[in-house]
Amino acid sequence: MTLTVLFAAGDAAFAEYQQPLRDAFVHHGLKVALVTDAAPADVDYIVYSPASTLRDFTPYTRCKAVLNLWAGVEKIVGNPTLTQPLARMVDPALTRGMVEYVCGHVLRYHLGMDAYISAPAGQWIAQEPPLAPERVVGILGLGELGRACADALVRLGFTVEGWSSRPKDVPDVTCHHGAEGFNLLLQRSDILVTLLPLTSQTENVLDAEAFAQMRDGSWFINPGRGALIDDDALLDAIDSGKIKGATLDVFRIEPLPADHPFWATPNITITPHIAATTRAESASNVIASNIARVEAGQTLLHKVDQQRGY
Amino acid sequence: MTLTVLFAAGDAAFAEYQQPLRDAFVHHGLKVALVTDAAPADVDYIVYSPASTLRDFTPYTRCKAVLNLWAGVEKIVGNPTLTQPLARMVDPALTRGMVEYVCGHVLRYHLGMDAYISAPAGQWIAQEPPLAPERVVGILGLGELGRACADALVRLGFTVEGWSSRPKDVPDVTCHHGAEGFNLLLQRSDILVTLLPLTSQTENVLDAEAFAQMRDGSWFINPGRGALIDDDALLDAIDSGKIKGATLDVFRIEPLPADHPFWATPNITITPHIAATTRAESASNVIASNIARVEAGQTLLHKVDQQRGY
Ligand SMILES: NC(=O)c1ccc[n+]([C@@H]2O[C@H](COP(=O)([O-])OP(=O)(O)OC[C@H]3O[C@@H](n4cnc5c(N)ncnc54)[C@H](OP(=O)(O)O)[C@@H]3O)[C@@H](O)[C@H]2O)c1
Ligand SMILES: NC(=O)c1ccc[n+]([C@@H]2O[C@H](COP(=O)([O-])OP(=O)(O)OC[C@H]3O[C@@H](n4cnc5c(N)ncnc54)[C@H](OP(=O)(O)O)[C@@H]3O)[C@@H](O)[C@H]2O)c1
Repeated sequence: MTLTVLFAAGDAAFAEYQQPLRDAFVHHGLKVALVTDAAPADVDYIVYSPASTLRDFTPYTRCKAVLNLWAGVEKIVGNPTLTQPLARMVDPALTRGMVEYVCGHVLRYHLGMDAYISAPAGQWIAQEPPLAPERVVGILGLGELGRACADALVRLGFTVEGWSSRPKDVPDVTCHHGAEGFNLLLQRSDILVTLLPLTSQTENVLDAEAFAQMRDGSWFINPGRGALIDDDALLDAIDSGKIKGATLDVFRIEPLPADHPFWATPNITITPHIAATTRAESASNVIASNIARVEAGQTLLHKVDQQRGY
Repeated sequence: MTLTVLFAAGDAAFAEYQQPLRDAFVHHGLKVALVTDAAPADVDYIVYSPASTLRDFTPYTRCKAVLNLWAGVEKIVGNPTLTQPLARMVDPALTRGMVEYVCGHVLRYHLGMDAYISAPAGQWIAQEPPLAPERVVGILGLGELGRACADALVRLGFTVEGWSSRPKDVPDVTCHHGAEGFNLLLQRSDILVTLLPLTSQTENVLDAEAFAQMRDGSWFINPGRGALIDDDALLDAIDSGKIKGATLDVFRIEPLPADHPFWATPNITITPHIAATTRAESASNVIASNIARVEAGQTLLHKVDQQRGY
């Protein structure tokens, strides 16, 4: 039987994904008609991204799963017409990218690199930085990405603490949870990394009150989602010196508008949502293997809890 | 019996090392008179650094070993009066510092951080960097430090190749040696890291001919020794775009003179010989435990091959 897979993630992405997806379907022994348009009642699976124009999932009565190309699902999970199971993207290449980004910027702040990169001629001030075990890196979110980053940072020697919704046990990581754990983590971190999904629970979780809990002169890295932070509160925390430097990859509006005050704040580094990009080849494999699982009667992997929103 | 240990590493260092050394001797069950002055014939061990004024080792007839506070021994190993065994500093804290420095700057170049750190307002160009396995990091020198860095870079996912004097076998690292291996490593590396000791063999090993072998647009990190490179050849390689960026921690003259052209070259980052500093507490332990070994009739660790010069 030939499966009908609707690619509903935009034309640009189709150009990129068409061939890798076809290859991955063959590789997983699936006979697939990969289309960008189909009678809804004929569609078996939907490959989705926020770039899609698809808004009403009601007519896709036969659809066994919607497979998101992105790790974040905040733009689709609240859609009331979505009754089909939703899988988010969990992909080794995406995880690897996030680990590299987070380790890179943590080491950058730890080593005080910026001061050397822009040092004036002749400035020779030999300050030895503390070693990694003396630095606490706090990670908000201990999911796929938070755990992978925690693990890599532990291997680099950092003291790592984390925070999640439910209690967790991660080797060599001090795990906190709940409201009390949140404050504790903020108070203890020299470098704070945000890897939470955006939900009604986590929106603005980093507000003025939260930043006030942080250590004086700490650093902040947000590759999670822009709306996790209150932009004005972050700007205030930087102005006051509470936060010595921040690196932000995600924003409420992307591209970040040229007149947003983040751009004009020297201690803020802006990266254009590139911390961890979905790469066509590995993501296509993830999607094909997940469809193959369902076709073989196994459970869908990386299924989103539509109640929790992630 | 009380041992006489002469601290010949300068007054400033004595202030820092006095207490940690005394503690470490006690910890290792050694009875020691730690002095900065003694009749040469009474001295059992010498703790040494290039800051010392001691030049003639001839009268230290009873001395069983000279223990260097630094990993590099180029300032003492050629001293013709030195007939006593010489140990260089191998210290977990020093190694850790070097690993952090090298991983940090490798990730910095890999991720193209500098462009984001200094991006003009509104510049949103989402270029996804290659992932670490697609980058070859070449390490010149596979000793204590080179191997530790190679190992950490492998764990971060990079493709790592190395070069040493004698053939080597390092897990997950493609090892080269000899003149042919040198050229091969230069030709294959996207990021080159120099962790060689300075000897008559390695002085100016990175000259115009060597830089010419490198990939166009590669990066260069030198935390080894300044005289490993021909300064003018490096400047030319940067001018021509052969080398896109260089980070240097060590120089022929330190502090690097304010009028040295390195300072005025935007693509060169200068750090003030801080990649891996000897830290009093852990170094004192290394020294005390090495003395305790010799006193117990065991071999001196980290003994320098005075013929080879490292
Ligand atoms: N910048 C980029 O390029 C990029 C790329 C990919 C992903 N991302 C972002 O990274 C986020 C995390 O991805 P992931 O794959 O690691 O997600 P995940 O596996 O779903 O993990 C989410 C983590 O956040 C925790 N969490 C959720 N709500 C919470 C709350 N209210 N309080 C405390 N903890 C809460 C979860 O706790 P429990 O474990 O207890 O459920 C879990 O540990 C994504 O949602 C996306 O926004 C960004
Ligand atoms: N910037 C800083 O803060 C800092 C701190 C500490 C050390 N350092 C520098 O780092 C250097 C390396 O330290 P280490 O502890 O790793 O030294 P090491 O253990 O003695 O290792 C030296 C390595 O270089 C190789 N080598 C030496 N001469 C060579 C030649 N002519 N051709 C090819 N390979 C050669 C050796 O090859 P074999 O294995 O075949 O002998 C060995 O692999 C030190 O000498 C020092 O200059 C800098």
